[in-house]
Amino acid sequence: MREGARILLSHGSGGTLSRQLIHDLFLDAFRNEYLAPLNDQAVFSLPSTRIAFTTDSYVVSPLFFPGGDIGKLAVCGTINDLAVGGAEPLYLSASFIIEEGLLFEDLKRIVASMAETAEQAGVQIVTGDTKVVERGKGDKVFITTAGVGIVGEGIALSPASIRPGDVVIVSGCIGDHGVAVLTCREGIRLETPVGSDCAPLHGLARSMLAAHAGIRAMRDPTRGGLATALNEFAAASGSGIIIEEEAVPVREAVQGACELLGFDPLYLANEGKLVAVVPKNAACSVLDAMRGNVLGADAAVIGEVVSDHPGRVTLKTAIGTRRTVSMLSGEQLPRIC
Amino acid sequence: MREGARILLSHGSGGTLSRQLIHDLFLDAFRNEYLAPLNDQAVFSLPSTRIAFTTDSYVVSPLFFPGGDIGKLAVCGTINDLAVGGAEPLYLSASFIIEEGLLFEDLKRIVASMAETAEQAGVQIVTGDTKVVERGKGDKVFITTAGVGIVGEGIALSPASIRPGDVVIVSGCIGDHGVAVLTCREGIRLETPVGSDCAPLHGLARSMLAAHAGIRAMRDPTRGGLATALNEFAAASGSGIIIEEEAVPVREAVQGACELLGFDPLYLANEGKLVAVVPKNAACSVLDAMRGNVLGADAAVIGEVVSDHPGRVTLKTAIGTRRTVSMLSGEQLPRIC
Repeated sequence: MREGARILLSHGSGGTLSRQLIHDLFLDAFRNEYLAPLNDQAVFSLPSTRIAFTTDSYVVSPLFFPGGDIGKLAVCGTINDLAVGGAEPLYLSASFIIEEGLLFEDLKRIVASMAETAEQAGVQIVTGDTKVVERGKGDKVFITTAGVGIVGEGIALSPASIRPGDVVIVSGCIGDHGVAVLTCREGIRLETPVGSDCAPLHGLARSMLAAHAGIRAMRDPTRGGLATALNEFAAASGSGIIIEEEAVPVREAVQGACELLGFDPLYLANEGKLVAVVPKNAACSVLDAMRGNVLGADAAVIGEVVSDHPGRVTLKTAIGTRRTVSMLSGEQLPRIC
Repeated sequence: MREGARILLSHGSGGTLSRQLIHDLFLDAFRNEYLAPLNDQAVFSLPSTRIAFTTDSYVVSPLFFPGGDIGKLAVCGTINDLAVGGAEPLYLSASFIIEEGLLFEDLKRIVASMAETAEQAGVQIVTGDTKVVERGKGDKVFITTAGVGIVGEGIALSPASIRPGDVVIVSGCIGDHGVAVLTCREGIRLETPVGSDCAPLHGLARSMLAAHAGIRAMRDPTRGGLATALNEFAAASGSGIIIEEEAVPVREAVQGACELLGFDPLYLANEGKLVAVVPKNAACSVLDAMRGNVLGADAAVIGEVVSDHPGRVTLKTAIGTRRTVSMLSGEQLPRIC
């Protein structure tokens, strides 16, 4: 492929150029026995009949940002949606909606990043699709991944099972992804640059469930951030949640960027963090297990579940005041994931 | 929702408006026990461990066309990709990339169509995602569906198993979908209007496999049409394929439109047809089974697999000449599915 080559409408025609793209790019990068026959579906056997199934579309702009790119995001995001359901991710699909004119080398870089992320995470991209839309009818590339994983016996994570007395644990510093994408997009230079936390969390989730299978619920606080995930927990359980502001780990650079730009870290997207609610008596063992994983090194208990203010999340500030942390309403940062 | 209401960027924020959209629209339309908890993944048990997994993105323009819409297409297309793998489709995911400004009532109509199609087909839409991109960065709505189905014991469809002596069967008239979308998009009025053939084919595929489990391969000839599907069969098997032009069922109105517009029906997209290669001794029973299904009423043997010209597809014309039917090269109709 010559330098500066771009994706044409014909790459989405289903004909010769489509085939070439699939052979030269996707098959080569994702190589595995299920994708290789180029059927319209992958057929495989699972080690169990209890499965988790998820999907997400990725429209992040820009495509490349400090700490990641849309491809890494698309693989990690779907792995994480399986992981927080207590599933072991196994197989992913990847569907590309490409805007005519995308640089072939950008697509290649994205696909290589997906392949690398999948390999490191031990999952396979086994089926996919490519569509090309006319210039001005898309935005470079959108990727939709779906994923299938198996859920072990006895694991039944559900926000509905959350009850007063439980504790809330977050796996590390929040807001990194949001700040990384935003500052990159707007060309803002921070004194201490912040990279996205984009990472696959299934290893972390696995070690947490090994420490205590009765974890109530987990979620990866992406769009809408920690505040939204906690509000979903509160709404689903009908309990209240109290968070200690000082206990929530936030990088100094992220805090600084938030003050500068007028954002609240609680609402910023994360792509390599999870929040879990666990019974109080299991908190120590779960926390120990988390801290034994590099992705949970900064894990911290940030609050507890209460019978007061059912369905609401309250923040206890450093100076002792309390405020309600509501769901995000109205505008937020678009195209963050 | 008031008349003329449109999708805002905030509907994709993950906050209050996202939640409202999910509750008012998706949950209500797709209602099922797996989607209801609004977790980031659906967890369910399968009746078997041997599964098929597929995905496709749908970018058809216009969104609504005679015989269907993007929603019906997105459900049928993924069902059909499972069906031609010999799988019984069970669960679907649906991910929406919406352009800011889409009419809420259009989205509602599309979602209702998906729900209706899924219900009629006996599949459930159990997980999903919604992203909103700025005006001019998308084209109204793109939908990506993924699907999971189970594959029965002893079923192993594979184009690689195709061999000389096998016969080629198509399930009905070709080209309807391509002509329906194209004429609708370009505002061309045909004397006899043509509607899309968009339909779920798993019932048809099931009855074919019940008639003969040893069917070699099936494919639904969508983008690139029958010509592309046959070329894929020829390439994968290393055999030649000969098609009798007169045996290929094409509606008169489609033939007429093709002559008028300069298209070859062999390359037009179908969304409710399948092409199968079966051992000669099973052709009659498979054909009988197909004709017993309304979607296979016009099924016909259109050609055979030969040891001549390996990897190539040849058409025997009505006047006895032969020409090679190659893969589509270069431009075709974009945004047809």
